[in-house]
Amino acid sequence: MKLTQTFIPTLREVPADAVIASHRLMFRAGMIRKLANGLFAYLPLGLRSLRKLEQIIREEMDAINAQEIKPTVVVPGEVWKESGRWEAMGDAMLRARNRLGVDLVVSPTAEEAVTALVRDDLSSYRQLPLSLYQINSKYRDEIRPRYGVMRGREFIMKDAYSYHADEESLDKTYRDMGRAYRRVFRRCGLTVIPVQADSGAMGGSGSEEFMVESEIGDNTLLLCKSCDYAANVEKASCKPDFRPPPSVEAAREASSSTPATEIIDTPSVKTIGDLCVFLKTSAKNFIKTLIYRAVNVELDLSAAPGCASLERRRPAPGAPELYPEAFFAVLIRGDLDVNEAKLAATLKAGELALAADTDVERLTGAPVGFAGPVGLTGLPIIVDQTVTAMGDAVTGALAKDQHYRHVAYGRDFTGWLVQDIRTVKDGDLCPHCGTSLYEKKGNELGHIFKLGYKYTRPMNVSYLDEHGKTQTPTMGSYGIGLDRTLASVIEEHHDENGIIWPVTLAPCHVIIVPVKYNGAVKTTADTLEKELEQLGLEVLVDDRDERPGVKFKDADLIGIPFRVVVGDKNLTASTPQVEIRRRGKVENRLVSAAAAAQELAAMLRAELAALNA
Amino acid sequence: MKLTQTFIPTLREVPADAVIASHRLMFRAGMIRKLANGLFAYLPLGLRSLRKLEQIIREEMDAINAQEIKPTVVVPGEVWKESGRWEAMGDAMLRARNRLGVDLVVSPTAEEAVTALVRDDLSSYRQLPLSLYQINSKYRDEIRPRYGVMRGREFIMKDAYSYHADEESLDKTYRDMGRAYRRVFRRCGLTVIPVQADSGAMGGSGSEEFMVESEIGDNTLLLCKSCDYAANVEKASCKPDFRPPPSVEAAREASSSTPATEIIDTPSVKTIGDLCVFLKTSAKNFIKTLIYRAVNVELDLSAAPGCASLERRRPAPGAPELYPEAFFAVLIRGDLDVNEAKLAATLKAGELALAADTDVERLTGAPVGFAGPVGLTGLPIIVDQTVTAMGDAVTGALAKDQHYRHVAYGRDFTGWLVQDIRTVKDGDLCPHCGTSLYEKKGNELGHIFKLGYKYTRPMNVSYLDEHGKTQTPTMGSYGIGLDRTLASVIEEHHDENGIIWPVTLAPCHVIIVPVKYNGAVKTTADTLEKELEQLGLEVLVDDRDERPGVKFKDADLIGIPFRVVVGDKNLTASTPQVEIRRRGKVENRLVSAAAAAQELAAMLRAELAALNA
Repeated sequence: MKLTQTFIPTLREVPADAVIASHRLMFRAGMIRKLANGLFAYLPLGLRSLRKLEQIIREEMDAINAQEIKPTVVVPGEVWKESGRWEAMGDAMLRARNRLGVDLVVSPTAEEAVTALVRDDLSSYRQLPLSLYQINSKYRDEIRPRYGVMRGREFIMKDAYSYHADEESLDKTYRDMGRAYRRVFRRCGLTVIPVQADSGAMGGSGSEEFMVESEIGDNTLLLCKSCDYAANVEKASCKPDFRPPPSVEAAREASSSTPATEIIDTPSVKTIGDLCVFLKTSAKNFIKTLIYRAVNVELDLSAAPGCASLERRRPAPGAPELYPEAFFAVLIRGDLDVNEAKLAATLKAGELALAADTDVERLTGAPVGFAGPVGLTGLPIIVDQTVTAMGDAVTGALAKDQHYRHVAYGRDFTGWLVQDIRTVKDGDLCPHCGTSLYEKKGNELGHIFKLGYKYTRPMNVSYLDEHGKTQTPTMGSYGIGLDRTLASVIEEHHDENGIIWPVTLAPCHVIIVPVKYNGAVKTTADTLEKELEQLGLEVLVDDRDERPGVKFKDADLIGIPFRVVVGDKNLTASTPQVEIRRRGKVENRLVSAAAAAQELAAMLRAELAALNA
Repeated sequence: MKLTQTFIPTLREVPADAVIASHRLMFRAGMIRKLANGLFAYLPLGLRSLRKLEQIIREEMDAINAQEIKPTVVVPGEVWKESGRWEAMGDAMLRARNRLGVDLVVSPTAEEAVTALVRDDLSSYRQLPLSLYQINSKYRDEIRPRYGVMRGREFIMKDAYSYHADEESLDKTYRDMGRAYRRVFRRCGLTVIPVQADSGAMGGSGSEEFMVESEIGDNTLLLCKSCDYAANVEKASCKPDFRPPPSVEAAREASSSTPATEIIDTPSVKTIGDLCVFLKTSAKNFIKTLIYRAVNVELDLSAAPGCASLERRRPAPGAPELYPEAFFAVLIRGDLDVNEAKLAATLKAGELALAADTDVERLTGAPVGFAGPVGLTGLPIIVDQTVTAMGDAVTGALAKDQHYRHVAYGRDFTGWLVQDIRTVKDGDLCPHCGTSLYEKKGNELGHIFKLGYKYTRPMNVSYLDEHGKTQTPTMGSYGIGLDRTLASVIEEHHDENGIIWPVTLAPCHVIIVPVKYNGAVKTTADTLEKELEQLGLEVLVDDRDERPGVKFKDADLIGIPFRVVVGDKNLTASTPQVEIRRRGKVENRLVSAAAAAQELAAMLRAELAALNA
C-alpha cells in the first residue's frame, strides 16, 4: 500500500474542541473526521483499525457460540411500545415517522428487536440456550456529545442477547461472556477494570461493567487497596464502621439509656452545618430525612403506609404493574449521601428525584428543612442501615424552626424498609476485606447484564419445555462500544508524538520510510514491501516526495508498530542494510535488507502471540 | 459447524406475501426474517452469504484503488440543504429532529456527506483522483415495500464517489467502475444486462445501469436481437423508420405539393381514435400536441417564446439557476408516446407532468383536445424528430371542435427545439444496426454515473491546480444494492426444492448429512468435518435427531453446493465410502471416505476459480 494512493490526511493542528489525547490523535492521524456534532466518519486508516477490533470481538463471540445476525438500524416503534420502553427512553431515542405515519426508531439498543425476532422462531426447549449478536450502528441523542468518538451520538456497538430455559444456563452464558470480554480487551492491549454494577430496576441478579480509568470518565469506581473488590459507585457497598443492631428490638434495647426525646427551638438554622454549629455536635449525630418522588415504581407498596389507594397500572400486557407516582421518606446519617441508583434499585423505580417543595410541605406538614421520622405517617419510610445504629440522634420535628434531640431508632420510630442506600466514598471500608477503598474515574466500555424476564414476559416470548408445558425464557444482554474501545486503546497507548498501536489493532504492521523514493532506495523499499506482504504482513510505504523529517513525524503520529527506514547510506555498505525501529522505543537497529522481512515477521508474530495468548 | 448449534429456523410454509422465489426461499431457508414492512433482519445463514458478497465487492473496489470509509448512517440535514436536495428528495427521505431541534437524515445515499468530508481535506491536485466508498445501511421510504429484500425500506448499499481534476480522469474511473461491476456480478454467478441509462437532469455525460431480467422488474429494457445495444426505455433511442429532413428549409421544400392548410369541423371527436375513424386515416398522420408543466428547469429559456419574464432562482449559492415553473408544448407523431424521462433530460427539469386543464385552456385558448402548433405562441414548442418528416398532417386548430388538415412542418409551423423524445418500443429499430428491438423487464442492481459539478459546485469543493489556481473537481457516483444482488442470485439459481448457491456466495461449502448421528457414522462425519476445515472449507454438519428425508429437504432448501451423505451401509464396504452430490445435479457419487475431503476441496477450487477468473 503506497501512501500517495491512500487517503490519510494527517494534520499538524489540533481541533479546538479536542481535549483528550484520543480525539486529538484520531483527528490528526486522519483516522476520523467530524460530519456534525457527535457524528464522526471513519477514514481509511481509522476504518482498518475499527475492522480489526470488530474481528477480535467476532472471534470471541463465535468462540462461545454466540451467532451473528444483522437486524436493521431503523426498527419499528411498535416493539418499543410492547416492552413499555417507548416512553421510558425519553429524548435519548431518535424517533422518526415515515410517510404512512408509522413510528420508527433509530436503534439505541436492540433488546426489543432481537426479542421480537426470537419470539417468532422459538418453539422448543431444544433451541435453548440461544445467543445472538450484532455489530451495528446505534444512535443515542447525547445532550453533550464530546471527546470525539468517546461520546458520540452515532456509535458502533456489539450487542448480544441470550435466551435460556433456566437460571443456571443464563449464569453459564453470563460467565462465558464475562470471560470473552476479558479476552477481547486483553487482545486489544487494554487495561480494564471489571466492576460490579447497578442492575437498575431489574433487581440485582447480576451486572458487570468493564471500565477503563479515565480523567474524563463519567463513572466513579470504588476499588479496594488490598483485595479485588471493585464496584461502580452506583452499586458499591462498604463494611459499616459501626455495629448495626440485628433487629428493631435490639436497637430499642441498645438505646435504653437515651434520655427521652425533647423538642429544641432552632431559629434561623437552615442546614445541617448550621445545626452542627448551633448544637456543638457533628453531622454524624443527625438523621437526614429526604422526601423523594419516584415514577413507575414496580415494588409492591400495597402494605406500605399511605399507599393503599395509590394508582397502579400495567403499561403493556404481560409487563409488571407499576405505580405511576409514589413518595418516600428516606433517612440517612447526616454525614452521608443517599445513593439514588441504589434507592431506585430498591424501589424498582423508573425515575427518582427529590420531591418538590410543595410536595414536601404537604407530606410533612412543615417547611422544607424540618422533616423527620418521629410522627411521620402518610408515606413509607426507607431507612439506611446507618440509621439503625443511631440511639441518640437529632432530627427535624415536622414544624418550622424546631428539631428533636435524643431520638432513637427502634424506640421513637422505625421504617417500612431498612436497606443499604448510602453512597460509598473514598476511605470507606471494603465490604470483602475491610481495607480502605479508593476512588477512580472510569469510562464504561462494556456491560453484561442478566435481564431475567423484563422483556420476554411483556413481549410474550414462549417455548414448550420437555413436558410440553409453555414457558417463558429468561434473558441476558451484553454490549461493547467499539468506538470507545478504540479511543481508549489510544488513550492507553500513545506518547507526545502520536499513537502507539498494539499490533492487534494497528491499521498496518509495518511502515517503510524511503529517505528519498527513487533509485536503489525505491527498489529496496518495493522489494521489502513485496516480501513482507508475501509473509502476510500489512505494509504502508511512504512514497511521498517529502523531507524525511515530515515522513518520520507522520509515521510516529499514525503509530504503525514497526518502522523501516531505507536510506542510500546504509544500502552502500558491503551488506545493504535497513534501519528498524519499534514505535514507542528509542533504539534503532540495523539489519540486513535481505533478512529484514523475516526479522519483522518474527517480531510481529511474537507480539501477536503475546496479546492473543 | 453443527446444525444443532446454529440458528437456522427453516420452514415448510411460505409467507402469504412472498410472491417471488427469492423472498420465499430466503424466508424458508431461515436466511431472513421480517421485523416490519420493508425491514428485514439477516439471520446467521443469510448474513454469511451477505458478508461474502460484501467481501467480493470490497476486493473489486480495492483493486481499482477505491478506498473504504465509514460515514455515519444518520447524517446532518444541513448538507442536504447545501446541495439543494433537502426538498427535492421528498418523502422518500426519512428525516428526524434531535432533542436540540437539529435536522437529521437517515442516509438514502451519500453524495452530500462524502462530498462534505472531501471538501474539508482536499487542497491539492496531487490528491486527485480520489475514490471513496462505503458498504453501509441506507433507508428509503418506499411507498410499497415488497418482494422481500428485493425492495426493502432499509437496505445495504455499496456507494462510491470519485473526484477528479478533469473529464479524462473521471472517464477512466467510470470505465474502471464499469469493469469492476461486471467482475462483481460475474463472481456472483449472475447474468446482468448493462444498459445505457437516463442521466436525469444532469445532461448525458454518462450513466450505465446493471440490470437483471425479472418479471417483477420495475424497469423496461430495450435490447437488440443482433448487436449488443441495450438501454433503459428512459434512455433508449431507435433508428427512424422514415427519412428526417436535414433542415427546416428542406422540410418546407419537401411539402411543396401539400395543399394549403384548411380547417375542418370535428364535432364530438374526443380522441385520436375518433379522429382516425372520422377522417378515415391513420394515427401516423396526426400531430399530437401535449402541454407539459415542468418544475425546476435548468435549461436556459431566456430566448424561448413566452419565457422572457419567467422567474429564475438559485436554490443554493453555487447551484445552477432554475426556473421554478415553466410550460411547454410537445409535439409527437400520433401513433407514438412521449418519453417523459427523455423530455425531462432535454429540459433539465426536476419534475414533469401534463399540465392541468385550466393551464391548457389558458395557454391554447381552446378546450383540452384541440391544441396544435399552428398559431400557437406564448410557450416554447418542443418537436419530436418524427414530426419533422410530416408534410401533410392533421392537428388541433386551437378552437373547440375544429382541426386543421394539410399541416406541414417547416411551412405551417416550426418548433423552438427539435429532439428525440419518443418512447421506443418492442419492434422499433436498433439505433446501431437497424435490427428490431425487443423488450424485457429488469431490476436495477447497480448504477454508475458521471455527476459532473452537480454537488461540488453548490457545496464549494475546491483544490489548487498545478498553477496554484483554485478549481472545482468533477465527480462520479457508483452504487450497488447488496440485498437485491443476493436476492437476484437466488432468482437465477434455484429449483423447486430450494436455493442452488454459487460457491462464491454459499453460506457454507459442504453440508455433511449423517443418516443417523451416532456410532461409526458420527465418527466418520466428524472426521470429515475436521479434514475439510483443515483444507479451508466451510462445513455444516446436520447433527439433528431427524429422519434422513427431513435432513435432505433442508439441505436442498438452504442450497449448500456440496452434500455428503454418511450412512452405515456404505461404511461397512471393504473401503468405507460416502456419497457426494452437487446441489442442482441428480447424480450421486460414492467416494472413499478417506479421499472425500481432498476430492471435495478440488471440486470447490475448480468452481471458485471458474467464477473468480
